[in-house]
Amino acid sequence: MAVGLSADINPSPVAGVRLGSAPLGVRSQPRDDLTIIELAAGSRAAAVFTRNAFCAAPVTVAREHLNRTAPRYLLINAGNANAGTGSRGLADARNCCQAVAERGACSIDEVLPFSTGVIGERMPVERFPEAIDTALARLDSDGWSDAAHAIMTTDTVAKSVSRQFEVAGHTLTVTGMVKGAGMIRPDMATLLAFVATDAAVSQRVLDDSLQRATEQSFNRITVDGDTSTNDACVLMASGASGAPTIDDPASDAAHLLVAAVTDVCTWLAQAIIRDAEGASKFITVAVGGGRHEQECLQLAYAIAHSPLVMTAMFASDANWGRILAVVGRAGLADLDISAVRIHLGDVCIVEAGERAADYTEERGQAVMAADEIEVSIELGRGPAEASIWTSDLSHDYVTINAEYRT
Amino acid sequence: MAVGLSADINPSPVAGVRLGSAPLGVRSQPRDDLTIIELAAGSRAAAVFTRNAFCAAPVTVAREHLNRTAPRYLLINAGNANAGTGSRGLADARNCCQAVAERGACSIDEVLPFSTGVIGERMPVERFPEAIDTALARLDSDGWSDAAHAIMTTDTVAKSVSRQFEVAGHTLTVTGMVKGAGMIRPDMATLLAFVATDAAVSQRVLDDSLQRATEQSFNRITVDGDTSTNDACVLMASGASGAPTIDDPASDAAHLLVAAVTDVCTWLAQAIIRDAEGASKFITVAVGGGRHEQECLQLAYAIAHSPLVMTAMFASDANWGRILAVVGRAGLADLDISAVRIHLGDVCIVEAGERAADYTEERGQAVMAADEIEVSIELGRGPAEASIWTSDLSHDYVTINAEYRT
Repeated sequence: MAVGLSADINPSPVAGVRLGSAPLGVRSQPRDDLTIIELAAGSRAAAVFTRNAFCAAPVTVAREHLNRTAPRYLLINAGNANAGTGSRGLADARNCCQAVAERGACSIDEVLPFSTGVIGERMPVERFPEAIDTALARLDSDGWSDAAHAIMTTDTVAKSVSRQFEVAGHTLTVTGMVKGAGMIRPDMATLLAFVATDAAVSQRVLDDSLQRATEQSFNRITVDGDTSTNDACVLMASGASGAPTIDDPASDAAHLLVAAVTDVCTWLAQAIIRDAEGASKFITVAVGGGRHEQECLQLAYAIAHSPLVMTAMFASDANWGRILAVVGRAGLADLDISAVRIHLGDVCIVEAGERAADYTEERGQAVMAADEIEVSIELGRGPAEASIWTSDLSHDYVTINAEYRT
Repeated sequence: MAVGLSADINPSPVAGVRLGSAPLGVRSQPRDDLTIIELAAGSRAAAVFTRNAFCAAPVTVAREHLNRTAPRYLLINAGNANAGTGSRGLADARNCCQAVAERGACSIDEVLPFSTGVIGERMPVERFPEAIDTALARLDSDGWSDAAHAIMTTDTVAKSVSRQFEVAGHTLTVTGMVKGAGMIRPDMATLLAFVATDAAVSQRVLDDSLQRATEQSFNRITVDGDTSTNDACVLMASGASGAPTIDDPASDAAHLLVAAVTDVCTWLAQAIIRDAEGASKFITVAVGGGRHEQECLQLAYAIAHSPLVMTAMFASDANWGRILAVVGRAGLADLDISAVRIHLGDVCIVEAGERAADYTEERGQAVMAADEIEVSIELGRGPAEASIWTSDLSHDYVTINAEYRT
């Protein structure tokens, strides 16, 4: 059950970008699980990848290829992560790219591979040629919805969204899709997010836009604290709109682009949390009054990763003692507890080191009964603030992860 | 269900130490939930407490009293933590100590208070005098077993153990008891551990013995990463054995004392994990070949706190990809994954960055089927090593913490 997330998605096509999906047959249930994204000649791309030292073979290969040239094709498969597979995994990823390059009449460096699914199993490389043929035959600018379904693993709903903005009389589109529900605590990106725009964008502005957007979106979510081996987020710009190139980072057009990309990435990041494994609540943890952003994030993640707080959220129990205990143990230097205030929604639960004088169990429970809950902590010692989004720890989380082989 | 832990406990009495328990009536089920420990005149005590900035009122008061003089009485209650209770909580803790001091004909500073249970509720101070009277009337050197039961909260079995050693022809005893099953990731101590010996020990050797013992025992366990507001561990030495005072830290007697105290504390710490909330597995995480102990502990705790790894443990699933992903994201600087080896029990699962050549699913499953599992990681870049103990993440963990108000 996804919290506040509709199964209806209606992403807008992006000029210069076509998508095709096909069944590779990795999943036990037959369905499309391979997607190809084709970019028009002259497109640019920026990408950020996982910082996990055990990064997957496709991450290594995609980084290499992207360092050499701009991509024409992205090849994505779900169900097998091609991670923990050593040198054979690297060869498999390159062979799959080569199969696309031959059919697309481009160099292997112009194909970027992405994989998500079980770690440590060899890729079924022999099945790729047929699936690639099918996917290429289905390339369509309206292929976003099918692709958003094809890249799912433990996701329960497909996640895609569009935003538009105006530059010099042109209406430009940013459309993105994402998958991911577990092993989610992205570090520079999350597991397989693809965002495209028909704007023409210089490489510098494109890289900058992606960095800014991911910092405020995918790098602000956690399900279980586990940074994946396969995280990747790609921002593609086809330039097919015919609007002038955005090449000045200080221009109004660049600001509009960053805002639209950030908006799309934030929607997608929050969608991951709404559809997180076993999620029954969508939780915002906001920390303010910190000395610097880093300590705000440190405390926010400590709360989000506390099994005691997150099981209380699942139970809709206004168990503020557990939140207070995390604030005290989160490792913030010289914390003056008398300056700390804690709110559940708009209800103050703790101030001056103890329960707020006007707090009542009924007021706390009223906040906790909702599907969407904000926990906010005011440290009262500086100007910094940061928010992250997370989900609760439920029986379904345990069931899903006791039964699914990541 | 406690993993490999018997409900039969038979702690040895310690000369100079008597214990009495009584019903205070905080628990919904009537049972003893208040305990007094009486120490013979001339006893010494050392204690370590939680580093949680939101430490409970009794922790503050016990620290103050212990800084002034040696204790004659310890007053312990279960069911109410007297934490997050502000200045009223401090007054309550002091009033309860005063009630014991009046009856024991000692100063208030000679009484140390300890509380465990729900955070943020006011203590029922009006009920203490009667319960204290009853507990004092029941003081008995054979009171350890009743006390170990009286201090329990979500524990399912009482936890107490004894060890003996010889000094100058005297047989000396170390007996300890502990409670705790959740909100467990001690930082200098764990939630309410009491260890006593009839040895005569100088304050310096006593402090040193406790520090060394807790560092290798209570500071090596985690259930949920949440350091409690009320953690405390006390080591008491009555001197009633008549054996000569142990005052040279380099003496054989001091080494025997440290060994016995460490042995008792390690047994108690492991007992907490065996009886951890929802535990179905007892898991040792051992990291070797590190540059320094800190990075070994950092990785060991990252694995112990991974919900993905711990749900796989619950499912007895040899899901080594999740372990590999944690090793890669644990933040170890300049990690060379080709030097990393990972074992489940004595089965090598990962080497040279990928699945070990001779690994089979059957061999992994055979290890995972047991109640006790060791995960060991060899980093291959230094001489340091460290081990910690933890439990799995089960449906019962979620049930217990969704229903219990810590």
